[in-house]
Amino acid sequence: MNALPILEPATKETCCPPAGTVLGAEAAKEKAIIFKALSDPNRLRLLSIVKAEASGESCVCDLTEPLDLGQPTVSHHLKILVDAGLLHREKRGTWAYYSLAPGALDKVTGILANL
Amino acid sequence: MNALPILEPATKETCCPPAGTVLGAEAAKEKAIIFKALSDPNRLRLLSIVKAEASGESCVCDLTEPLDLGQPTVSHHLKILVDAGLLHREKRGTWAYYSLAPGALDKVTGILANL
Repeated sequence: MNALPILEPATKETCCPPAGTVLGAEAAKEKAIIFKALSDPNRLRLLSIVKAEASGESCVCDLTEPLDLGQPTVSHHLKILVDAGLLHREKRGTWAYYSLAPGALDKVTGILANL
Repeated sequence: MNALPILEPATKETCCPPAGTVLGAEAAKEKAIIFKALSDPNRLRLLSIVKAEASGESCVCDLTEPLDLGQPTVSHHLKILVDAGLLHREKRGTWAYYSLAPGALDKVTGILANL
């Protein structure tokens, strides 16, 4: 049998890049959530403040003033960052403390490198 | 009246890291635009397709089919990517051709590293 193989995009030269190297729809949705979390100036500043904190974590009580936002708004932004896997949240006593999720920024860098 | 001065983050010592290391409001706005461009699954896929193209550029005419979107929608997404400095656009004859803006992804990686 000399059945012609089904052409894989990898063998095409006219328009499309190899299939394996192009981001699929589902993967793109997942990754877009992370960039969506990063797409707000206040959330970028929250990440920056948490990252710069010498102790490695910031109390939510210390995050409202630098941004000049109310605590509900800050908590809303923090939740988006936690849900996207960028921040880690730990409740201790009255307050919640936020730290960069280990490897989170490297993961985003990896997404960009492997687009 | 309780005329307490508005505390500048730069002069605070109780909670905040040194001002120079924390992203300012204006810089955060600029950077957020880039992440906003990356926050849509279709735009991530467009970047991925353009990046994977062996020739280094993709004709807009080849970008509609992989995404199963109409050309106006694709052109809208491409414009956002161009405006954010992620893609370079060149019109040649009937079609526009898109390539990754040189250093664009490295720039995003740099933003993350220097948050």
